[in-house]
Amino acid sequence: MKVLVIGANGQVARHTLSKLKEEGHQVVAMIRDSSQADELVKLGADETVVADLEASFDHAFDHVDAVIFAAGSGGHTGADKTILIDLWGAIKAIDTAERMGVKRFVMLSSMGTVDPDKSDRIRHYLVAKKLADDHLKRSNLTYTIVRPGSLTNEQAEQVIKLEEEIQIRDNAIKREDVAIVLARVVNLENTFGKTFEILNGKTTINDALASI
Amino acid sequence: MKVLVIGANGQVARHTLSKLKEEGHQVVAMIRDSSQADELVKLGADETVVADLEASFDHAFDHVDAVIFAAGSGGHTGADKTILIDLWGAIKAIDTAERMGVKRFVMLSSMGTVDPDKSDRIRHYLVAKKLADDHLKRSNLTYTIVRPGSLTNEQAEQVIKLEEEIQIRDNAIKREDVAIVLARVVNLENTFGKTFEILNGKTTINDALASI
Repeated sequence: MKVLVIGANGQVARHTLSKLKEEGHQVVAMIRDSSQADELVKLGADETVVADLEASFDHAFDHVDAVIFAAGSGGHTGADKTILIDLWGAIKAIDTAERMGVKRFVMLSSMGTVDPDKSDRIRHYLVAKKLADDHLKRSNLTYTIVRPGSLTNEQAEQVIKLEEEIQIRDNAIKREDVAIVLARVVNLENTFGKTFEILNGKTTINDALASI
Repeated sequence: MKVLVIGANGQVARHTLSKLKEEGHQVVAMIRDSSQADELVKLGADETVVADLEASFDHAFDHVDAVIFAAGSGGHTGADKTILIDLWGAIKAIDTAERMGVKRFVMLSSMGTVDPDKSDRIRHYLVAKKLADDHLKRSNLTYTIVRPGSLTNEQAEQVIKLEEEIQIRDNAIKREDVAIVLARVVNLENTFGKTFEILNGKTTINDALASI
């Protein structure tokens, strides 16, 4: 499949490019700044497309079979960007996928979005992510929503805990393991229409995804 | 009717209290801080209830027939509060009204929410207001969504322009006129299920509302 990665320069997304290649996909990295192109090709993108979630980005969806939404305004911008990228950008990407006939949509979401009011520190961020997820669930797209816990930079170990809502949140998860999950679910039919949380754990990624 | 005004200490909402009295309603002002109570009773509230959109507020909906949502985080707080009050607070108020059987819901929205991407300066605010309005439209409540343009403090003149989407935005609107509209629509059946924009104009408020 031809897979468009939105927010390809993000930390999880950069890992995702090579993982998608390993799954046999053709990878298009959507970036805002053309100066990022060379590095993302080195990381595994077959091609790059310059487009901006805050402007026009229809052209990035041409001839695409699946979208991975991994964009995020990050911790260094204001909450206005949380609204405009994580929430509004996601909603517009979902609507664009519907309009342009791209049926498959994988969302990089976040643990804690089930009930944002349980969080203090990043409640506004979790609200934005939850409402984007809700919009995707109401769409006619074939979605998978992946909700990792706190992200760390260790190398992937390919063993995770996966549940619809993990009760005991005593762990983090490695960005590279999240990337493997995102890449693997693209074609995995039993994850279609599903939403789940992931943390480091003891089950292989393949077994965990098969158990859904 | 017993009408709950959420965000009753806001500038438009304060005008709304006496206008609701003039329409024959019993007025409950929902406030975060009990020190505001005396002043709001002087302004026209029959009673006040202390409740917080960011905490629990179910008790404020007891025995209420209609809600006017006029809360807003205002221009002096960060965009995180735009998410938590204008968007998430509104969504929770709508869900609470549904759950507690309060059927009538009047939303103080904003001009420009039809297409937030046309705005530069307050785009994130318009996105938040639009998504709250969309949530209300999807609910099973009997709603009216009132979208004023730029607000000013002159005395009401009771003449406005009212359209679903006003094309020529060459004007502002007086807060007191907005308050009259909010109070008058509560019982006005031809405004049920409708969304409209208002500015200063030449049509009396009664005629403008009758034309919907």
